[in-house]
Amino acid sequence: MSTADFLIPGDVTTPLGFLAGGIHCGVKRKSLDLALLTSESPCAVAGLFTTNRVKAAPVRHCRHVVARGRARAVVINSGNANACTGPRGERDAEEMARLTADALGVPAEEVLVASTGIIGEPLPMSAIREGIRRVSSGLRRSGTEAALAILTTDSFPKVAAAEADIGDVRVRIGGMAKGAGMIHPHLATTLCFLTTDAALSPGALDAALRAAVSDSFNRITVDGDMSTNDTVILLANGAAGGDPIDGNAALGRFQGALSRVASELAEMVVRDGEGATRVVRFRLAGAASDAEAERGAYRLAGSLLVKTALHGGEPNWGRMMAALGSAGIELAEDRVQIFVGPVQLVRGGLGVMEARAPAAAQLGRSKVDIRVDLGLGSGEATVLTCDLSEEYIRINGSYAAERSAVS
Amino acid sequence: MSTADFLIPGDVTTPLGFLAGGIHCGVKRKSLDLALLTSESPCAVAGLFTTNRVKAAPVRHCRHVVARGRARAVVINSGNANACTGPRGERDAEEMARLTADALGVPAEEVLVASTGIIGEPLPMSAIREGIRRVSSGLRRSGTEAALAILTTDSFPKVAAAEADIGDVRVRIGGMAKGAGMIHPHLATTLCFLTTDAALSPGALDAALRAAVSDSFNRITVDGDMSTNDTVILLANGAAGGDPIDGNAALGRFQGALSRVASELAEMVVRDGEGATRVVRFRLAGAASDAEAERGAYRLAGSLLVKTALHGGEPNWGRMMAALGSAGIELAEDRVQIFVGPVQLVRGGLGVMEARAPAAAQLGRSKVDIRVDLGLGSGEATVLTCDLSEEYIRINGSYAAERSAVS
Repeated sequence: MSTADFLIPGDVTTPLGFLAGGIHCGVKRKSLDLALLTSESPCAVAGLFTTNRVKAAPVRHCRHVVARGRARAVVINSGNANACTGPRGERDAEEMARLTADALGVPAEEVLVASTGIIGEPLPMSAIREGIRRVSSGLRRSGTEAALAILTTDSFPKVAAAEADIGDVRVRIGGMAKGAGMIHPHLATTLCFLTTDAALSPGALDAALRAAVSDSFNRITVDGDMSTNDTVILLANGAAGGDPIDGNAALGRFQGALSRVASELAEMVVRDGEGATRVVRFRLAGAASDAEAERGAYRLAGSLLVKTALHGGEPNWGRMMAALGSAGIELAEDRVQIFVGPVQLVRGGLGVMEARAPAAAQLGRSKVDIRVDLGLGSGEATVLTCDLSEEYIRINGSYAAERSAVS
Repeated sequence: MSTADFLIPGDVTTPLGFLAGGIHCGVKRKSLDLALLTSESPCAVAGLFTTNRVKAAPVRHCRHVVARGRARAVVINSGNANACTGPRGERDAEEMARLTADALGVPAEEVLVASTGIIGEPLPMSAIREGIRRVSSGLRRSGTEAALAILTTDSFPKVAAAEADIGDVRVRIGGMAKGAGMIHPHLATTLCFLTTDAALSPGALDAALRAAVSDSFNRITVDGDMSTNDTVILLANGAAGGDPIDGNAALGRFQGALSRVASELAEMVVRDGEGATRVVRFRLAGAASDAEAERGAYRLAGSLLVKTALHGGEPNWGRMMAALGSAGIELAEDRVQIFVGPVQLVRGGLGVMEARAPAAAQLGRSKVDIRVDLGLGSGEATVLTCDLSEEYIRINGSYAAERSAVS
């Protein structure tokens, strides 16, 4: 990672030339539910989307826009995913793009659309039509309302920004994300919108985005479920000036700064996982290969028994051993070491009895690091997750009911 | 399935020549924790074991016994899994076999051992030594106490029995199982002990057991976690008389009766899943192949969002669509049909609005059938699971604490 990039306070409007807005239009009962993000000048665009076979209408729309490489704006509603809505859903997504384009005076084929919320209900288009007119007339250089308007069961908005000096040019990167549930890594996860005033070709932008997402959003899991709407969009308008970023060194520096922003947002998504009370970082080393390390780390991060023990703050290492053993990876039970923070909990596959109390103290924190060494090879991987609580069940056991009652 | 087999009231001692007992020896605080099952005459034995790379010491012991094909008894403790216990665990499992053999006057290499409970703590052998002496002196023709003594977080004992006429001989099959958590199908799941007074060679017994388990214990999932101790044992003592069962027709009849008992027990395991309030049968048809149907059915049965919606009694079909879409199987969104009991909830990939209320009524039942048709091919699979409740989190968030407090 470059030393020339650092995080700064900010959001999607921190890069020059981006405007945003967010309003309540009536998809939800009360909270903000319609966001608009636009650039004053044309942008190169890159995007990564859910690998779910069931794709929401706006995802299909965005893939066409991204394929052409140019965009000017993104319109996003929360409260309704416009997924499993058939031909009507397609028409509604297209209409959202067209109305936004008309309001902003830009080409309709350069407007991206994203939706998040309940699956299988038609969008309330009359509310959205009126909302698009209203949100597009109140755009400003602040992403605060937009970041609120894209949330669903999230408990706080997720924004981040970074600056980097690339050659003679200072560029800025900003981002916002929503998370909370259906979080699992299969290409892009959740909704995330990134902006930059750097100048990049669509091809370079795509490479940087893929690298940044593989370090961040592809390394988190809340509940193993994959959304029909997962979308990560990156817009680059070149407003910082200078030649397009090119060459390995400059691109590497840009990608480093982008990864910082994406990682910040990804960690916020985990911290705000539905019902989460703590963020847990599993670092698996000593595996036969990086791929095996990744599989093992995801097995740990996905095990209900491990996640409930983490919720209870219990150093139940036996469940971790059982999860590792069922990951389908090479494993020698008597070589496994497990550390919770600085405390060695398992040595050579056996529990360290005197570690129980100090390990429990570590597990009581809001951020927990668990390091596993399989003692076999040099494969490594890190995965971020959260604990699993009764609150997750309460939220998801009555989502539709809650939604109409409180949102 | 043969018409000549039927379920009867009974347990592991329903087949002739089997005796059992169960006592409290002190592994748990108060409830029964040591079971013994034995046959008055030598048995052929078959067994299936966890595929977890981390295998408990008793599992490794049993595999040696089963490889030789002959057994006389099984000793089982609950409250402690004797897993991740290193060389000491190996010695303890061997000692349990030897003490049981001495008490019964049978060869030590014909005694099977099983343990279930917390992972990573040494067995309290002084309690177990005294317990084996005591339980072996009080054996009788009832499996009631044994079925109680093998339980952990289960809320009720699980026993079943069946009779079948094979040629001129009436044979009996009995079984007991424990379940509740760490239930997922990778070969044999959970602990299950089956007995029969039919005469079979170890090879025929093994084939029948594999077929019965693939229809039953390999079709259930509670939480996707795989135990280090999963064991299914089948003992056949031939006490019903007659020649060894041989030939496809007779073996098929025996296997049918065995499947009846195994399926009964597997369904009880799901019904008693930790925190479960309902049993849900997912039947996936119209898939490109049986293997794809199985993958899709397990994805549905394993999705936290689907399982929490089932807990809430909500007809949230969007989550089922999202789960199917992420199963990595062939899928045409607009061909998907989903039925809850007799109510069609999804037609051509779209929700049937008027089905909401009747589907919710179906989902409120204690047994729910959900049928999905992908409309692509003739692949089919059925998987049994339960809902996911706050109670699951409570049970597993503080297992060690609960265990020492209440068991």
